Amino acid sequence: MFDIKNFIQKDKFAQSAGITLIEASQGTAKAEMTLDEKHMNGLGVAHGGAVFTLADLAFAAAANSYGTAAMAINISISYIKAVKSGTLTAIAEEESKNHKLSNYTVRVYDESHEPVALFKGLAYRKKDKI
Amino acid sequence: MFDIKNFIQKDKFAQSAGITLIEASQGTAKAEMTLDEKHMNGLGVAHGGAVFTLADLAFAAAANSYGTAAMAINISISYIKAVKSGTLTAIAEEESKNHKLSNYTVRVYDESHEPVALFKGLAYRKKDKI
Amino acid sequence: MFDIKNFIQKDKFAQSAGITLIEASQGTAKAEMTLDEKHMNGLGVAHGGAVFTLADLAFAAAANSYGTAAMAINISISYIKAVKSGTLTAIAEEESKNHKLSNYTVRVYDESHEPVALFKGLAYRKKDKI
Amino acid sequence: MFDIKNFIQKDKFAQSAGITLIEASQGTAKAEMTLDEKHMNGLGVAHGGAVFTLADLAFAAAANSYGTAAMAINISISYIKAVKSGTLTAIAEEESKNHKLSNYTVRVYDESHEPVALFKGLAYRKKDKI
Repeated sequence: MFDIKNFIQKDKFAQSAGITLIEASQGTAKAEMTLDEKHMNGLGVAHGGAVFTLADLAFAAAANSYGTAAMAINISISYIKAVKSGTLTAIAEEESKNHKLSNYTVRVYDESHEPVALFKGLAYRKKDKI
Repeated sequence: MFDIKNFIQKDKFAQSAGITLIEASQGTAKAEMTLDEKHMNGLGVAHGGAVFTLADLAFAAAANSYGTAAMAINISISYIKAVKSGTLTAIAEEESKNHKLSNYTVRVYDESHEPVALFKGLAYRKKDKI
Repeated sequence: MFDIKNFIQKDKFAQSAGITLIEASQGTAKAEMTLDEKHMNGLGVAHGGAVFTLADLAFAAAANSYGTAAMAINISISYIKAVKSGTLTAIAEEESKNHKLSNYTVRVYDESHEPVALFKGLAYRKKDKI
Repeated sequence: MFDIKNFIQKDKFAQSAGITLIEASQGTAKAEMTLDEKHMNGLGVAHGGAVFTLADLAFAAAANSYGTAAMAINISISYIKAVKSGTLTAIAEEESKNHKLSNYTVRVYDESHEPVALFKGLAYRKKDKI
């Protein structure tokens, strides 16, 4: 069975970015990240890498939520709105899944529920249990 | 004039990921990141978000190297090889540039110069000086 | 006002591919293409370029549906299922829109409503009326 | 052995778009398309679907050039310059290849060798001979 807490606890990079995995099941997932000084880029707004990492965690949790390993092979992200503070939420939804590949859309929102980034992830599905 | 050291020193997220900007000029850039425990994902390999952040820094440095501000609007990344240790190098090259938009390819290599990720970034160019 | 019939009648490439624009308004659009011999690739399945062109028409119609010109600057497409015959339907939905840029997701389905392709388009919005 | 002429002769969609495959070997390929009325969109410039189809043919030829079947699973394209006439050239180069996946960059140029589009394709490699 897929164990959310275990999944996130082993992920050192997401942990150091302060990302919390709220839920993950059957191809969907939700994650949050509260912005502070460490997420900023040189322009004083949330770093594209930080926003990507939040969306990527929701994607990975959704893709792995069936209990078999899936690895990211391609991701496309569009940045929509620059944000400076508050909590960002990422929601992952499954678009398709066959025995080899699965596709997910992840939307990142700010506290006003305005879109911050649109992320599309393609995963390669292994047969290995997690 | 574009000041590399200033650019990276203000970038808290890239700094905390241990990324070093080696050079940046006229639409090109090179950055490095030595992998350690903090870059790992739940599977014990370099996190997709860490590899993305390295490539993104090289992209941002190249796109901003003319001294006018450019912001990422779309990025596509393909993950090619999982890596566990060593120093990763990202090389950004300019594919096109007009007064509004510019495109960059960033290739991330491991220490054996094998490709780790292929990153394509599209930037929106502002008129503001950095 | 945005005139769907005029929009598609001027598009020679979409016309020769046999694409029909069913509806377009307020950031959404729907288009169809019935597969025949001319859409096939060397493997006897619908050509990636044909599926792309169908999705692209729905994207363009949605992005231009407000009556001001918008042009595609970046597109990402994932191919999910190979199809050989029947009518494909593309549905475009708006993910975000500001005064410069807008993002759309287009889903292409076969007659069983199974996903054939997932398309994400980024448009640059001009001030010109169409 | 990979037979270029056979590959393109079976591709009805590329043929009807007037695309010529010039060469393909060892992960590289070159294709051309001379623009005329049938390639135009509603704005009187080369249709994004036509430019995509040209680049896609070069990508497919490069990915299949080893004689084993490879199918496109994800493509990202950036449109750089609108073109109205002349011959477009697409050059595909291999970025990476392992036993399952391969990545290609395709650059589309106009007659002045200015960049028209930047295309990045990811292929899934089967074990089947073509």
